[in-house]
Amino acid sequence: MKKHLIFALLAYLFIACKEPINNSSVKVSTPAELEEAIANASPGSKIVMANGVWNDLQIRFVGKGTSNNPITLKAETPGEVIIQGKSDLKFGGEHLIVDGLYFKNGYSPSFSVIEFKIDENKANNCQVTNCVIEGFNKLQRNQTDLWVLFHGRNNTLDHCYIAGKSNRGPTVRVDLDGNESIKNYHQIVNNHFGPRPPKGGASAETIQIGTSSTSMTPSHTLVANNLFEHCNGEVEIISSKANYNEFRGNVFYKSEGSLVTRHGNYCTIDGNYFIGDEDNENIGGIRIIGTGHWITNNYLLNLKGQNFRSPLAVMNGIPKSSLNRYKQVTDVVVAHNSWINCKSPLQFGVGSNLSQKDVLPASEIRSAVPIRSTVANNLIYNTIGDESPVVAHDKIEGINFKNNIINNQGTTFNTLDGLKPISFEMNSLTENIMVPSNDIQEDVFVGFEFETIDKDLFGNSRADKNAVGAVVNKDVVDSKILDKSKYGTDWYSINNTTDTKTLSMVSQNDDLASKIAEADEGSIISLEAGTYQIEKSIPIDKKITIQSKDENNKATIIYSGGAETPAFEMNPKGELTLSNLALKGEDTQYAFASLKKNMSSLYNLKVSNCEISNFDYVLKGYKLSFSEYISFVGSTLKNCENGIELSAETDDKGDYNAENVTIENCQFDNIRKNVIDYYRGGYDESTVGGTLMVSNSTFSNCGAKEDNGILLNTYGIINVDISKNTFTNNPVKLVALLWGAKNNTHSDNEIRNSGKLVVEENLKLKLMY
Amino acid sequence: MKKHLIFALLAYLFIACKEPINNSSVKVSTPAELEEAIANASPGSKIVMANGVWNDLQIRFVGKGTSNNPITLKAETPGEVIIQGKSDLKFGGEHLIVDGLYFKNGYSPSFSVIEFKIDENKANNCQVTNCVIEGFNKLQRNQTDLWVLFHGRNNTLDHCYIAGKSNRGPTVRVDLDGNESIKNYHQIVNNHFGPRPPKGGASAETIQIGTSSTSMTPSHTLVANNLFEHCNGEVEIISSKANYNEFRGNVFYKSEGSLVTRHGNYCTIDGNYFIGDEDNENIGGIRIIGTGHWITNNYLLNLKGQNFRSPLAVMNGIPKSSLNRYKQVTDVVVAHNSWINCKSPLQFGVGSNLSQKDVLPASEIRSAVPIRSTVANNLIYNTIGDESPVVAHDKIEGINFKNNIINNQGTTFNTLDGLKPISFEMNSLTENIMVPSNDIQEDVFVGFEFETIDKDLFGNSRADKNAVGAVVNKDVVDSKILDKSKYGTDWYSINNTTDTKTLSMVSQNDDLASKIAEADEGSIISLEAGTYQIEKSIPIDKKITIQSKDENNKATIIYSGGAETPAFEMNPKGELTLSNLALKGEDTQYAFASLKKNMSSLYNLKVSNCEISNFDYVLKGYKLSFSEYISFVGSTLKNCENGIELSAETDDKGDYNAENVTIENCQFDNIRKNVIDYYRGGYDESTVGGTLMVSNSTFSNCGAKEDNGILLNTYGIINVDISKNTFTNNPVKLVALLWGAKNNTHSDNEIRNSGKLVVEENLKLKLMY
Repeated sequence: MKKHLIFALLAYLFIACKEPINNSSVKVSTPAELEEAIANASPGSKIVMANGVWNDLQIRFVGKGTSNNPITLKAETPGEVIIQGKSDLKFGGEHLIVDGLYFKNGYSPSFSVIEFKIDENKANNCQVTNCVIEGFNKLQRNQTDLWVLFHGRNNTLDHCYIAGKSNRGPTVRVDLDGNESIKNYHQIVNNHFGPRPPKGGASAETIQIGTSSTSMTPSHTLVANNLFEHCNGEVEIISSKANYNEFRGNVFYKSEGSLVTRHGNYCTIDGNYFIGDEDNENIGGIRIIGTGHWITNNYLLNLKGQNFRSPLAVMNGIPKSSLNRYKQVTDVVVAHNSWINCKSPLQFGVGSNLSQKDVLPASEIRSAVPIRSTVANNLIYNTIGDESPVVAHDKIEGINFKNNIINNQGTTFNTLDGLKPISFEMNSLTENIMVPSNDIQEDVFVGFEFETIDKDLFGNSRADKNAVGAVVNKDVVDSKILDKSKYGTDWYSINNTTDTKTLSMVSQNDDLASKIAEADEGSIISLEAGTYQIEKSIPIDKKITIQSKDENNKATIIYSGGAETPAFEMNPKGELTLSNLALKGEDTQYAFASLKKNMSSLYNLKVSNCEISNFDYVLKGYKLSFSEYISFVGSTLKNCENGIELSAETDDKGDYNAENVTIENCQFDNIRKNVIDYYRGGYDESTVGGTLMVSNSTFSNCGAKEDNGILLNTYGIINVDISKNTFTNNPVKLVALLWGAKNNTHSDNEIRNSGKLVVEENLKLKLMY
Repeated sequence: MKKHLIFALLAYLFIACKEPINNSSVKVSTPAELEEAIANASPGSKIVMANGVWNDLQIRFVGKGTSNNPITLKAETPGEVIIQGKSDLKFGGEHLIVDGLYFKNGYSPSFSVIEFKIDENKANNCQVTNCVIEGFNKLQRNQTDLWVLFHGRNNTLDHCYIAGKSNRGPTVRVDLDGNESIKNYHQIVNNHFGPRPPKGGASAETIQIGTSSTSMTPSHTLVANNLFEHCNGEVEIISSKANYNEFRGNVFYKSEGSLVTRHGNYCTIDGNYFIGDEDNENIGGIRIIGTGHWITNNYLLNLKGQNFRSPLAVMNGIPKSSLNRYKQVTDVVVAHNSWINCKSPLQFGVGSNLSQKDVLPASEIRSAVPIRSTVANNLIYNTIGDESPVVAHDKIEGINFKNNIINNQGTTFNTLDGLKPISFEMNSLTENIMVPSNDIQEDVFVGFEFETIDKDLFGNSRADKNAVGAVVNKDVVDSKILDKSKYGTDWYSINNTTDTKTLSMVSQNDDLASKIAEADEGSIISLEAGTYQIEKSIPIDKKITIQSKDENNKATIIYSGGAETPAFEMNPKGELTLSNLALKGEDTQYAFASLKKNMSSLYNLKVSNCEISNFDYVLKGYKLSFSEYISFVGSTLKNCENGIELSAETDDKGDYNAENVTIENCQFDNIRKNVIDYYRGGYDESTVGGTLMVSNSTFSNCGAKEDNGILLNTYGIINVDISKNTFTNNPVKLVALLWGAKNNTHSDNEIRNSGKLVVEENLKLKLMY
């Protein structure tokens, strides 16, 4: 044995000595020093960036480390090296590690914040770890970039926190164009993807792997053990567009979208958690397009989305689809998943649209139903019975349903061979995890290669005692999936804006504009009764509430600024609540408007119990501006030339200017044009956005000068509900023209001398693809 | 050591004993015995079929052998077990071997002759070896079958001889529909694929792997070390339609077609031989569609095909192509191949058809040029200089040309970066193999993963001394690629019909019909001068020549059979040469016609120095009949209602009735309709067939009753040449309407009082897909 040891040691030394190791550590404090250190680095080098703010820094990390001796670029103290301004980081070489940097207060001057390529020099075996990218948005939402852009092979993004992207482009993208970037085995693991607000249009995925044009490539990207929290950018949280990607052990927490196999085939979706919210229909699950995907051991809780956003959406394809549209689903396996308290969790033939053949070309008709697919050994549990746990939007003969079980609390549903109602109970292991209280005795179907499903959700072996559903063993320990210390960096703690609001009293003697400018994030400005004259637009770039001190004796704000300027100028990140006030113009101004450009983030606006009058526009959203929430509640809007205009996105590429618009208990009187004008253009079945609720409101003497003759213009908006309103003496042709095929509804409206409310089933829109 | 040995022996015995071995051999002589033996078989069983003819036998070989102890079904003597009549063979199970059977004189009653599946029971690890399938055709060419149909995984077809398929359907097909049949690693190795005649339309590949609808699947089929000899069925000899297939070491000998990566990606085409013929433009090479294929170490000699049939055709794709059309070429590597005496061997953007945008929909326009592809380290050698060794049908900026060399004997050509004219010599190693006489000193380009090209054409290592071209070492030994003992069975020898012709003298006293019926294959019937009266159609089902004994004193045959019956009835395999005769009808009969149905094989007809008169039709080809060669030389056709009609395929699916039609030195006089009527319908860019040559002939007083007003109607025929003819006093609108975009030409014709000869560039045809 001794001899062997000596030989092994000698061998080790021999191998080790072949490679010149550099264990030196060099600290750099300026860009020039950093550049020099990179140029001088050799395997084993450590470059330490000094704490502090690095402004306008473009790191070009070129080098060649080795597997045992990588070259490392790290923060002196993780999180205390701030990269801001026009900055980015690009890798070119092998075995390079970046550790502990913090990107904030800036944006990339290039197409990416972090990229695994410099010109044609693609990175391999490189790593970004323990870093943060936060709100590093380009100035306008139509300026595209990626925050992390993969090329090459075997690169890793791990233990990072990434949040707040609002401009166009997926947060993370894997590029596959070129043989150097296929079979990449990249790893995106243990990250925390924090909130991404809705973009109001396409191209806002959190992760996109490939594009349709490279969807034939073998990718083998692993996305595992990440937390996706409120990733609401668009309908796809993850868009897999290549072959052999794997999605394992991720937690999708209240994220408005789905994990979608959009293009490409043979992906594995195993052991993920999808956690919804009782009231949120935007939170989806898994949406399947294409061939050979295996969806196993997933746990889906409280998901209420439908159709494209169903807990499981197995789509119809377009026969012989072109490369960038919808491939037929074939050879898919959905096995050993659990759906707990989801609404109609299993939906097949989603996107079936034969009924739209008159408004769409044949190449857009999804009539190819799923075939040669197996749905087996799944478990559905409902605390309250579901009348349609399985929804067939088209024929489902191509699907082999085997040994699925449901506890539907006795509620009847359309029976289906292979879905058996049985009685079993579930225990809450934690708030979000329910596991069967007893071993479920139902037989397990053994399909082709089902022996490869050898572990359950918790990684326990299925060999000895297999069971239907995602969990085999009732005696499991809490895996703490929402413990945020398991994801992201070891230093960043999410900045929870305190809800303790500073209250600032303002009287007529004060300068209201200054008070607002000086106020802290989240402040409340409380106005004494009286009249406040404003002569210049007040910029709103933070969260702020302006209200009357005494709601029974409202203050009045009179705006006398320039024509076509707003009293309140909504800046990026501006969140204004206006409450119990009167706001008056002089007929030529706007009450509220976004910036005309550089809306790098969204704004929100809430108006309650106010009276707004004598403006040219009540609200004008300029092109490229976006608001997640706009609401007018209990307010009066009167004597204005225009009302609420959110219709500046006229390119018909699916973009729109606001996600949620709510009008409740309001009175609109003598609003002459664009009473409500809310627009989304471009045919894209997967867009699920734009929401307008108009209820319990009255509209009178409005629309006299409206060119298109429609009082509430909602063209192309997907979700519209108009109910319990009264329309009196509005000289228009139509109160509204609703889109029947989408989620457009109306009820209990009283219409007198105001035109008709018409529903058109299939709206003709411009094709986007 | 002794202990170890004992232990190993014990272990072996233990493992061996776990599996019940059956070394028994059972001989069977009847279908019932065979069925019983199969039912009783266990691992190791050998079932021996008795020599003799087995008629109408449907073998269902179900069983479960093991890797070490397969179940074998073998001929008592290989080749002496004849399977004939309505017979087929299907496998269902594991580790089953069939050895030595001979399928002939029959056809499959099912969709396949040999199939690796019985109902839903797919075969795995099964083998067909040392068998022959010969002329086992269904009765009509539109009746589809496959002769070997793969399903499941790890099945093998080896050392078989397979020839003579003329009905619709690839000879061998691999099916990939269903997860059980993907990643199949089937092996098609060491076979001899003998002649397959042209089918006259699509679906006559020798091997097809998958279909477009399963083209996203990983297939991994290996096609290696096979000989393809005169595989002329259609434009594709091998049609690869799935991913990761490998084509290695095959010999394509004078086969009219190409190896095509029609759908699917990442195939390997390595070390194959493509051997052409000086004068045959139908013999192609390698045609590339799709992504990521590697074409390396191939040797291509004497190939004269162009465009779709070029020695290397890299195609243009359709942007965002639908699943069944043409994908763009991307990420392809063409390296270390040798083209010797090929015409314009490297063609890029093949199929570019923007010029046809007026007659084709956008979804048929191939405008997507090859991108991200590398063409490097290839060698071109021309004994006679080639002015265009590289043809760019569209832009070639997407291709990286590196370190390619050409010896063009000083002939200038369009220069191209990356193709260097240098001087080097080649030696003939054998008739068909030329290797460099000296080591070529040119630098080798090292592209991405080029280190995987570690061997050359002959399997010699490239590690020590790499070189441009397919061969690294000048000192190589003949690998005898055309030694037929290397391919196919160990018992079958190809039946070369002797060219020693029996001469049979016939006088007016003899019964001509009986003499013809009795004649051997290849006989010559020589007629004394005089008149021969025939009252019934004479069937021609073999190779036979009928001629006058004295060409200066021609015999006359008068046919007085029923109206609309032919003097000579062309049966399957009928090959008639008629020479120096007069053939006369009584106005209502046909001189020649095919069978009306059951044309299970083609017929050929050659008429020289004859006078044919007073028929309703000279030649009538019925629907589903097909002739490879029809020629009229030095003959007179006169006073007939119709001439030569080969236009029965009116379904517009690309089929046609004859491959080669030649009219030379003939006189057509008073042929009133369908003077020549030759038709192919259906738009399919890859169809290259139908050939009509009309030269040095005269046409007078013809076409008076022709409805369409065209004398020589060649609608849809790809190759037409009309030259040096004289057209006089033919009352038609057009002599011919030629298709300019195809290979239709005319020259030196004299046209008097006979309408015009018009060329239309883009013919409007029915879309087939």
